[in-house]
Amino acid sequence: MRRLDSSAADFASALTQLEVPMESGDSDVVSTVAQIIADVRQRGDEALLEYTRRFDHLDVEELPALEVPREELEEALQALPEEQRAALTEAARRIETFHRRQLGEDWSYDDGLGNRLGQRVTPLKRVGVYVPGGKASYPSSVLMNAIPARVAGVSEIVMVAPTPGGERNALVMAAAALAGVDRVFCIGGAQAVAALAYGTEAVPRVDKIVGPGNRFVAEAKRQVFGQVGIDMIAGPSEILIIADGSADPEWMAMDLFSQAEHDESAQALLLCPDAAYIDAVDAAIDRLLPQMERAAIIEASLARRGALIKTRDIADAAAISNGLAPEHLELAVADPEALLPHIEAAGAIFMGVHSCEALGDYCAGPNHVLPTSGSARFFSPLGVYDFQKRSSIIHCSAEGAAPLARIATVLAEGESLTAHARSAAMRSGE
Amino acid sequence: MRRLDSSAADFASALTQLEVPMESGDSDVVSTVAQIIADVRQRGDEALLEYTRRFDHLDVEELPALEVPREELEEALQALPEEQRAALTEAARRIETFHRRQLGEDWSYDDGLGNRLGQRVTPLKRVGVYVPGGKASYPSSVLMNAIPARVAGVSEIVMVAPTPGGERNALVMAAAALAGVDRVFCIGGAQAVAALAYGTEAVPRVDKIVGPGNRFVAEAKRQVFGQVGIDMIAGPSEILIIADGSADPEWMAMDLFSQAEHDESAQALLLCPDAAYIDAVDAAIDRLLPQMERAAIIEASLARRGALIKTRDIADAAAISNGLAPEHLELAVADPEALLPHIEAAGAIFMGVHSCEALGDYCAGPNHVLPTSGSARFFSPLGVYDFQKRSSIIHCSAEGAAPLARIATVLAEGESLTAHARSAAMRSGE
Repeated sequence: MRRLDSSAADFASALTQLEVPMESGDSDVVSTVAQIIADVRQRGDEALLEYTRRFDHLDVEELPALEVPREELEEALQALPEEQRAALTEAARRIETFHRRQLGEDWSYDDGLGNRLGQRVTPLKRVGVYVPGGKASYPSSVLMNAIPARVAGVSEIVMVAPTPGGERNALVMAAAALAGVDRVFCIGGAQAVAALAYGTEAVPRVDKIVGPGNRFVAEAKRQVFGQVGIDMIAGPSEILIIADGSADPEWMAMDLFSQAEHDESAQALLLCPDAAYIDAVDAAIDRLLPQMERAAIIEASLARRGALIKTRDIADAAAISNGLAPEHLELAVADPEALLPHIEAAGAIFMGVHSCEALGDYCAGPNHVLPTSGSARFFSPLGVYDFQKRSSIIHCSAEGAAPLARIATVLAEGESLTAHARSAAMRSGE
Repeated sequence: MRRLDSSAADFASALTQLEVPMESGDSDVVSTVAQIIADVRQRGDEALLEYTRRFDHLDVEELPALEVPREELEEALQALPEEQRAALTEAARRIETFHRRQLGEDWSYDDGLGNRLGQRVTPLKRVGVYVPGGKASYPSSVLMNAIPARVAGVSEIVMVAPTPGGERNALVMAAAALAGVDRVFCIGGAQAVAALAYGTEAVPRVDKIVGPGNRFVAEAKRQVFGQVGIDMIAGPSEILIIADGSADPEWMAMDLFSQAEHDESAQALLLCPDAAYIDAVDAAIDRLLPQMERAAIIEASLARRGALIKTRDIADAAAISNGLAPEHLELAVADPEALLPHIEAAGAIFMGVHSCEALGDYCAGPNHVLPTSGSARFFSPLGVYDFQKRSSIIHCSAEGAAPLARIATVLAEGESLTAHARSAAMRSGE
């Protein structure tokens, strides 16, 4: 596997070469998506049916035939093998427990003049959850996207999931039932995003669209942003491990594989100051790789974007991590609490050698929809707060309004907004 | 002024005609902005200087000449007339008091198995604040954008404000000093947004860009979204008043004017079930309009997008308001608390006749950067939460990891992600 050394003169540029270019740069994708959105806005269901025929090889006469009846979701859940149903149910329970702590609350206070000021928190009315199709169609994604919306109190959760060739994933349908999804449409791509953003005859318009997708889906979300809310722009998944040598090297190798197996654009990095330990991880990678079912994807991903990086010390590793703001950060060190204060930005932080990413991906409780490509600098994990909105509350009394009116009048006149000034002055009691 | 009746057959379409088309639809703006961004990314300061020459008629040799020295900001504050300085200072204090209540906090809990799960809240490192130039260059905007960032703990606040012809607004500079802005550059437009998003030789790259701007600025923010965070896509400003006749009609007229005077695209609507009261407001409008300094803008705005709307009752008015999700909502009724539970979406809600929008615009405390064009369905007012990010914390113990590992293994195998399954299984203690 690729080896880098943070002391090398060309280290920064070597690291940059492992980045993926921002997907927004591709003008073909931008214009294709713009056309699809315009078409769905104009022709509604008819356009949706055509794109579904073309991209998903699924030919139906009417859009409602692409809606999965609620009973089918429930049946899928009941039909699951007991072990899977129990695991999915327990995962859902743990995810809900975590997310309940994120519920925003109303608050208000009196400003001492008799005015009450506050913030009101209310759920979004209707949201759309995008679930990728094909090989990336994951029941865990359904739980992670829909449960926070349900906890927030969203009235209607509409899921879209492309079903290439018409094949519906029973686990995905079961997860939708478990997560409390209200409606499911077997549509995908930019056309599904457009339908949710603007509404068609059959697909209701939503207030926000969440969930990961391919580059067309990501670009479509970017283009409809403003018309609806979106969660974030998702890129390829990443893991960064800071290791001090306290974990079994095979654990580290497998944690890197768990990220790399997603797809060839995924990134897996391990940073460690101990060259001998890096050798041991490298050897474990060589030993374990041939055993993996998805060895080809893992190998391609590691070759393209992976690296084992020798750092000066653990602080140097933390500094490199801060520059990358990784989606998943494993602190595979003996004392993760001591290291945490030095971490500036990461989507999810896995503390200590027993906290591997896979536990967080499925069932620890926190969300697995996380900011990628360095956007943990400013984005947060998907959460209940994504499905709530705030309104400011300003309740002035006759007496309390007067001193505010005098301030506002001065400032409005300074901005030459004289109607503002007079409107305020009318509340000055003078 | 335009009169509508919610009982009329064509009411819905009449209301739709008062909407502004989403600005994203303009492909000329989209491609112009894309070119400017690409140019600034490629040529940095040189491109910034050229665009500033072309658009702001401001010709300097080097970009640093466009940075305002910190002393100039302080001097501007000290040079203000006492009344203005006191008003600005008191507004800043009230805004800070309100926003301190929005500070997010870390939390964690034990899941009963020995695993600690939680959420960590940290400030963004560096943010950019866009302040519009020319006639829309408002000191109050500086306070409203920068104070929440400072309260959040942002390390560096970089302000950009175009200064057409080189004329710096002393009140804006004073507000920057008061709000704790760290650096100010006299640049604007899409080029300033690009500089903040990607960094140039002189302008540092930020993590998030906030603040209102014209259509080029809004489109630029949309295009850099993902590379950096942005606050929201801002459109023309709006007010919607629900009136039951308990306010002096002249107060209502002036509140409508205070919105309409912003620009010709601003929207001012009053909804009331009492036709005689609407007549009185209409007469007040006719009487007061000629007295207004910005009468031409107000008149154009009211003609283009304003309306006095007769509703069936107050509940009907609330339903119409919910459909529009207005930026500013005045509940000019005798019992606003009784009406509030019926309001589903609005940026800021002004309760009762003494709570006019102008008080909120300047000094009540809540933010005046609010979601426009119906986006209060999913966006919130600008707040401290916009300048903080969350990270999930997952800290499993050896014993606590085992039951999670068994769940994750089952689910990962269901998704055919066998490296995930093995990574989890390694923590199962088996």
